[in-house]
Amino acid sequence: MGAPLLSLSQRVRPTPFSRRVESAGAKAYTTYNHMRLPSMFESVEADYHHLKRHVQVWDVACERQVEIAGPDAARLVRMLTPRSLAKAEVGQCLYTPMVDETGGMLNDPVTVMLAEDRYWVSIADSDLLFWVKGLAYGTGLDVNVFEPDVSPLGIQGPKADDLMARVFGEAVRGIKFFRFEKLAFGGHDFVIARSGYSKQGGFEIYVDGSDRGEPLWDALMAAGEDLEVRAGCPNLIERIEAGLLSYGSDMTRENTPHECGLGRFCRTVEAVDCVGRDALIAMLKDGPARQIRSLSIEGEPVPACTEWWDVTVDGEPAGRVASAVWSPDFQCNVALGMIERAHWEPGTQVTVEAPDGPRSAEIRDGSFI
Amino acid sequence: MGAPLLSLSQRVRPTPFSRRVESAGAKAYTTYNHMRLPSMFESVEADYHHLKRHVQVWDVACERQVEIAGPDAARLVRMLTPRSLAKAEVGQCLYTPMVDETGGMLNDPVTVMLAEDRYWVSIADSDLLFWVKGLAYGTGLDVNVFEPDVSPLGIQGPKADDLMARVFGEAVRGIKFFRFEKLAFGGHDFVIARSGYSKQGGFEIYVDGSDRGEPLWDALMAAGEDLEVRAGCPNLIERIEAGLLSYGSDMTRENTPHECGLGRFCRTVEAVDCVGRDALIAMLKDGPARQIRSLSIEGEPVPACTEWWDVTVDGEPAGRVASAVWSPDFQCNVALGMIERAHWEPGTQVTVEAPDGPRSAEIRDGSFI
Repeated sequence: MGAPLLSLSQRVRPTPFSRRVESAGAKAYTTYNHMRLPSMFESVEADYHHLKRHVQVWDVACERQVEIAGPDAARLVRMLTPRSLAKAEVGQCLYTPMVDETGGMLNDPVTVMLAEDRYWVSIADSDLLFWVKGLAYGTGLDVNVFEPDVSPLGIQGPKADDLMARVFGEAVRGIKFFRFEKLAFGGHDFVIARSGYSKQGGFEIYVDGSDRGEPLWDALMAAGEDLEVRAGCPNLIERIEAGLLSYGSDMTRENTPHECGLGRFCRTVEAVDCVGRDALIAMLKDGPARQIRSLSIEGEPVPACTEWWDVTVDGEPAGRVASAVWSPDFQCNVALGMIERAHWEPGTQVTVEAPDGPRSAEIRDGSFI
Repeated sequence: MGAPLLSLSQRVRPTPFSRRVESAGAKAYTTYNHMRLPSMFESVEADYHHLKRHVQVWDVACERQVEIAGPDAARLVRMLTPRSLAKAEVGQCLYTPMVDETGGMLNDPVTVMLAEDRYWVSIADSDLLFWVKGLAYGTGLDVNVFEPDVSPLGIQGPKADDLMARVFGEAVRGIKFFRFEKLAFGGHDFVIARSGYSKQGGFEIYVDGSDRGEPLWDALMAAGEDLEVRAGCPNLIERIEAGLLSYGSDMTRENTPHECGLGRFCRTVEAVDCVGRDALIAMLKDGPARQIRSLSIEGEPVPACTEWWDVTVDGEPAGRVASAVWSPDFQCNVALGMIERAHWEPGTQVTVEAPDGPRSAEIRDGSFI
């Protein structure tokens, strides 16, 4: 169907940047962690070309933080993920698949190590806070778990370093990938990480204190006028090209980190505190039965992918596609799908059952960019 | 702002009824538990008048179920709520405020007691599953906690009994308020409760098995043609008139059940297993400092209430309004707000800081209907 209207309410929470996003002409939104997430400004294609050439400011406040602080904080974080945190250091941002006792994915957040006993878990779209609170209460750990007033602002695109240096100083250029530093604007130190939901480079500013949102937004826009800075948002085309996963679409509680292709982030045997360890180890021997793959889909631009599309080989089930869109740069439809083992080798020809009919598609060896 | 577009994806899950909802001409949606919830068909006002006169079929699949089953199921359910379940019986549906260890509201679900050791917790908009799973794992209770393939379908309006009797037989008329019975359609027994998110009367059918959704929808529509049955949805005007709360708007984790006016559902002293009991008992002596009240707001129809509006008295903070809309039947703006104790007496005149300017408003003695 065409995009319907979105009825807004307080339940779909406004962000510290919502007024600026609205003024900037956001035409479409999605919702994420009970919050507004813009999804389109000029058009998805125009936003995409701009992101790849210039720099954008993204309201990703919906990446809510679960703050875990206190004497048992490190212990509790270790329970959440099969990623080994033995060598984690303060200043690191760690992509951490988080699983339940069955090894099923509950979220794929970035865990920001603020101190040995203080973490911000910057979450994808599920109330991970509830799982962490439940675990903390049930186990009686000495820890404080809550959602602080912290709203990430993304600065993404090839000119991100230049823009950020104008506002936070040259030191921003020295921030390493998936590391953060604290840099000042307006007399306040912000946690700034080199990270973000695109492959165009950039930063996420963890804006602690909603009142600080608009002044920072305005300063970035003013400083970047000649860089053609614009309000933007995670871009459907670019993130599929980049193979960046969307929790709830590409993967759910039904999937293990290995099915999601996140095995490289797991050290399950070493992660002795992880609540999903036994379940994951039991599955290690056989390996995953399905895994996320990038695909190219032939033919004209596909319709909006608003539901899972079946993938078949010779009429037999071979998986499903969760995300698909036309790519102007690759001049084909780019997609992400969960593909059965028998059919996941690069080069395998499959059929995608799109709503407008079956289409030929090919399993790729890695993402497009 | 005017309603923006909603970008759909698998992450905003389709329901077993989505195709029928789309065919019926849903114009606007909201999202709820990561799922699509229609919010308007003809218009909010036209839908409202129809709901009060006829009967509607509502896709409320987004009221997801948290199934709690096993030897320790009853114990775990008792941990979740300050409502006393000592006298709860199989066949009952219980409105159960659910709180964390601070007494803060995590959800306000209806708990369906299917058996002594099996419950469906039919949730409002938060991932209560995560809290229950975390508690269960942390405490080591012998219980299975999961989201089953169960999607409620609401049948609401004054002709609901007539419509349901045609499809499920006359026995449906005997179902008592907030009780369920199992009645057959198409050779399958459905759990049918006399409940729903309106005060116009009606039922919720717990459709277990997504494949059963469309045949049931079609049968209801066919059977009700002369009753003027239509696809509908929870109606913003009617639910505010009725004082039905929306979790995430009218109340959040920051609020206790007593602040939400749900004290009549709590037996905190008797609820010895409730994890929030100590915190709630500590607050019992002083009573809540604020509480939800119905208000009438003067003047022309208010703009869409998409954020909290401050409430003041003589310029001093007196609370906030979370839900407000023009009521055709009452010819005034109806609202729900969290009001400070000093100002919550019925008849108190307050000022609501609407986005188009301050308005006089009055605290009511109870809901409008």
